[in-house]
Amino acid sequence: MSLSRIGITLGDPGGIGPEIVIKSLANPKRLPAAHYVLFGAAAILENEENALGLKLDRKAVEIREIPTSLGEIKKGAADKDNGAASFLFFQEAVEAARTGEIRALVTAPVSKRSWALGGIPWRGHTEYLERFYPGAVMTFWSEKMTVALFSHHLALREAIARVTRKNLSDFFLALHECAGKARPGKLEFLVAGLNPHAGEAGILGREEQDEIRPAIEDARSAGLEISGPYPPDVVFRTALGHPEKIVIALYHDQGLIAFKLDAFATGVNVTLGLPFIRSSPDHGTAFDIAGKNMADARSMTEAIRLAGELSSRVF
Amino acid sequence: MSLSRIGITLGDPGGIGPEIVIKSLANPKRLPAAHYVLFGAAAILENEENALGLKLDRKAVEIREIPTSLGEIKKGAADKDNGAASFLFFQEAVEAARTGEIRALVTAPVSKRSWALGGIPWRGHTEYLERFYPGAVMTFWSEKMTVALFSHHLALREAIARVTRKNLSDFFLALHECAGKARPGKLEFLVAGLNPHAGEAGILGREEQDEIRPAIEDARSAGLEISGPYPPDVVFRTALGHPEKIVIALYHDQGLIAFKLDAFATGVNVTLGLPFIRSSPDHGTAFDIAGKNMADARSMTEAIRLAGELSSRVF
Repeated sequence: MSLSRIGITLGDPGGIGPEIVIKSLANPKRLPAAHYVLFGAAAILENEENALGLKLDRKAVEIREIPTSLGEIKKGAADKDNGAASFLFFQEAVEAARTGEIRALVTAPVSKRSWALGGIPWRGHTEYLERFYPGAVMTFWSEKMTVALFSHHLALREAIARVTRKNLSDFFLALHECAGKARPGKLEFLVAGLNPHAGEAGILGREEQDEIRPAIEDARSAGLEISGPYPPDVVFRTALGHPEKIVIALYHDQGLIAFKLDAFATGVNVTLGLPFIRSSPDHGTAFDIAGKNMADARSMTEAIRLAGELSSRVF
Repeated sequence: MSLSRIGITLGDPGGIGPEIVIKSLANPKRLPAAHYVLFGAAAILENEENALGLKLDRKAVEIREIPTSLGEIKKGAADKDNGAASFLFFQEAVEAARTGEIRALVTAPVSKRSWALGGIPWRGHTEYLERFYPGAVMTFWSEKMTVALFSHHLALREAIARVTRKNLSDFFLALHECAGKARPGKLEFLVAGLNPHAGEAGILGREEQDEIRPAIEDARSAGLEISGPYPPDVVFRTALGHPEKIVIALYHDQGLIAFKLDAFATGVNVTLGLPFIRSSPDHGTAFDIAGKNMADARSMTEAIRLAGELSSRVF
């Protein structure tokens, strides 16, 4: 059997992306056996290798040179050339994933601001992917907790309006389908409520009774092991230490306040519902420490490890 | 100087309240030197002392016998007699605090359900206090984090509607006033945004630009050290380990998802803006373990300690 192929983008050249990619790949023992394809530019990689005093084995790591207009690399701030280049790296990598050349894609952090400066019309990786795959689901994985977001980049008002029985039922079934492929064994879902104390029998909001509970019943009738709605300030505490239970958060911050507090440095963002696995570290470009050999590569390493593990099951 | 007087209610007799009160007071070394007044019934206390094999020193701990219709104590479930009794304990203790007989009040957990069964029209301690003191502010204190709630028991929709420049400005000033009394030295406030990524320059919601930022400017003009709005999924992580910085959460779960994850077992709820200090442990009646000598009294101990510390500064 030939080695599976995992694509990795270098991310924004001005951020910590190239550094954490190199640091992760320089410790292959922690990573799945795979053929790694780096989407970026040899100049960026070599520059960073020299700065770090590390050298990747070019037999195990292939560099896919993406033509860009990058000149000298400007570190530590949003930059239009870095934005345009990091988008091209990503776009090529997605194309390779769509055609099946790679079966998992790990993306180093990009800067929304660099993308905007570079004239890129998408706000980030996920928005670009959602254009092609409207059923994409954002999930967050760590050793302590697994969280799926019912909605993500929406104003809180709009996120509330999205909470209907139909939308929720559809989401529960789609999540069950795509998470079931990625994770062996029986899945269990815990649904957070929307309101304080999960509405407290309607006193603190009606959504739990009118929308969420019926949607959970629908999903249960369809065979899912799913329960809730639970008080939002309790369910994450309950689920802590049980990554086999997937907490469904009804809006971005409900899930991410919890996840970022307890999975910092090793948390991984995984997009499910695509015909390939896409993962990324749970942090940004960290311009403030870029180029200083200070970046912690654990989340990137975990993203690569998880991409290998999940993709070997799914595809 | 005579010892300060701290009142403690026994809470719901069917829950873990009496147990954690006794366990805390049985370890006086961890507590401030004070004259403690227990608002409850000797029968409940003695029953619990016998069950635990502990005996409180009646010279250091005074029992204020509150007449109730309680018969034999029913443990482990919501009960109308327990509800009515626990309300009377609290009501008497508040009265003693209002008249200045005690200068701090620590409340053991009550059951909203027991109160409702007992015909009590308030949903909890805070709702009762707010009737007398509309300026009451719910805050949460631990060694790791301090959180103030701009709103608490409101449906999420209503909590959003409450986010106006005027309401926020008023709250910031009121919080600064009452927190300044309780905490020595310079105060620093970090304001969470309402929307994901704090609205991301208006793309994900307008409240940050239209209401929150102007209110922060108002408060800064008034001399407060206050900043934000910060992305909600980042600000709690940033503040972790800095209890001297007070994070202002704009709705119940924003603050409490974070606080309960990282301050479990030792977190304390403190109501500010009253003419006395009121604190309580950050957990409920725990009916499932009541009467089993399994309750962890750390949060109660911390609530008593903090009540003593804060009240010695404020009043």
